[in-house]
Amino acid sequence: MARLYGGIDLGGTSMKVVVATAKGEVAGSAGGPTTPGASAAATIESIAQHLETAASLASVHPDKLKGIGIGAPGAVDPKRGIVVTAPNLGWKNVRLGAALGKRLGSPVVVGNDVQVAIVGEHAFGAAKGCSRVVGVWVGTGIGGGLIIDGRLDRGARGAAGEIGHVLLKEDGPLCGCGRHGCAEALASRTAMERDVREAARNVKTSVLKIMKEREKTRMTSSVMARALKANDPVMKRVLANAQHYLGLLVGNLVNVLDPEMVVIGGGVAQRLGEPFVQPIREVARSRFLRPDPDGKVRIEPSILGDFSGALGACALAKRELR
Amino acid sequence: MARLYGGIDLGGTSMKVVVATAKGEVAGSAGGPTTPGASAAATIESIAQHLETAASLASVHPDKLKGIGIGAPGAVDPKRGIVVTAPNLGWKNVRLGAALGKRLGSPVVVGNDVQVAIVGEHAFGAAKGCSRVVGVWVGTGIGGGLIIDGRLDRGARGAAGEIGHVLLKEDGPLCGCGRHGCAEALASRTAMERDVREAARNVKTSVLKIMKEREKTRMTSSVMARALKANDPVMKRVLANAQHYLGLLVGNLVNVLDPEMVVIGGGVAQRLGEPFVQPIREVARSRFLRPDPDGKVRIEPSILGDFSGALGACALAKRELR
Repeated sequence: MARLYGGIDLGGTSMKVVVATAKGEVAGSAGGPTTPGASAAATIESIAQHLETAASLASVHPDKLKGIGIGAPGAVDPKRGIVVTAPNLGWKNVRLGAALGKRLGSPVVVGNDVQVAIVGEHAFGAAKGCSRVVGVWVGTGIGGGLIIDGRLDRGARGAAGEIGHVLLKEDGPLCGCGRHGCAEALASRTAMERDVREAARNVKTSVLKIMKEREKTRMTSSVMARALKANDPVMKRVLANAQHYLGLLVGNLVNVLDPEMVVIGGGVAQRLGEPFVQPIREVARSRFLRPDPDGKVRIEPSILGDFSGALGACALAKRELR
Repeated sequence: MARLYGGIDLGGTSMKVVVATAKGEVAGSAGGPTTPGASAAATIESIAQHLETAASLASVHPDKLKGIGIGAPGAVDPKRGIVVTAPNLGWKNVRLGAALGKRLGSPVVVGNDVQVAIVGEHAFGAAKGCSRVVGVWVGTGIGGGLIIDGRLDRGARGAAGEIGHVLLKEDGPLCGCGRHGCAEALASRTAMERDVREAARNVKTSVLKIMKEREKTRMTSSVMARALKANDPVMKRVLANAQHYLGLLVGNLVNVLDPEMVVIGGGVAQRLGEPFVQPIREVARSRFLRPDPDGKVRIEPSILGDFSGALGACALAKRELR
């Protein structure tokens, strides 16, 4: 039987769990909502039960898995398997790796949600075969991750890749982190929604109407896609502005890190694809110090779908528990 | 006899050559001016002769050296040992590694000048014992280099660490690279000189007088030190402005790379030391996303003197020719 790994993509609102081979073939999967306000222990028990379901579908006992990876939505201390802080879960210093490992009887590797998604794209997706990759994940916030020499590079404190808080405009908007002008405050989906709402005070836009029709309280990627299809001028302008700053961010990252590839992922990129990435690529390339006439530095959208995080968590477990 | 290495710090105006042990003990050294307008072949011959002198002082034949490292002032292709472009030398696509290796009979490793200086600080200086370091070198321009897992990280194309061209202020001053708002255009010694000259049109400053007295056409580090000692208000204000932007740059680098240590080097840092670094550290820390209450991320001035580049080139040869 093929060696099997468990992978968990733990989000603030839902979780996805897979049991898969080292090649990313899914043998079993499960998933469900994350209960708001639940204790960490209750959430960990819920994760374990989903993992048991997925393992059962794959006809394997959880303690026979070669390892389990999990991506958590926050800051992690990978060496100790601790989620240092995960605001969307209300977690602080949760010993996720130890608790889950004890409950399931397999070793557990902890990463953050963006890191595991990037490992997924590197193991099975857009960045397959590259040894040096930067991931730029655009969603509620902006997260990132580095692959160096073919491995997830976590930094000295497990904090590498916090690219959402690269300063791009000193007098720019207030960021969720309390500082001004971070990339996240200029170009995340949250920043775009803020800009759309502000513009809507003075200019006609279909965005708020689409949100109402779809009973969304937030400007989701699907709302954005619909508004763009309707040629909404506010949505187009706000998106172009965010793409501009994302281009400056990617340019900075290429100048510092000199990667083979930059993968742009997250909900917006997944929904809009190449048309989202193209203007980012153009601005980024205009900032490259080292000329790249042959386009050796690739800037591409992610290609894995909803399972990228959970599959990436499997790949992380495989790599780090070798 | 101890194994000996050759190290060359090739600058636009002068070169320094050492023959040293793996521990950085100098067994022989030589140096001299770089002839302006000389052909690449003539400059390489001059380097070889200096290396022969240093080797002779160390009682070793050049072809008995374990390896030779050289730092060149420009963009290099380390795999092929080529200096892609070095404006201060007038070089384009010079096969420095092959030419020097053939001439001297020892294998040659090529890096850029800032990279070798950072390797020097890592091997023998401020960053000794660290496994993850970012170097920020402030001089005519701003250069950088990364140590990851204890090794010089050169990037996919040998272009990693071009931190001088991180955008910090989109409508900022024009940079030598033709773009606006790069760190180098805001905080290099060249940028500071531009700001002092501009201020001097309207405000009294001693800087130009000091330059005249010392027969300097440029605002060197020693001119800066003298003006600061005289409490010159323009120099103080211009320096504080550059330190502010260097702080933003270091903050960005820490958020992306999560190093153990940031070494601030180059002529200005060497001359001014801790008082130069202290305000940079303060601004940088205000930008850290991951809190660092215990000051685990050290931001320190370089400590090696004039031989850091040549000794770093020895260390690079030792590491990469192992």
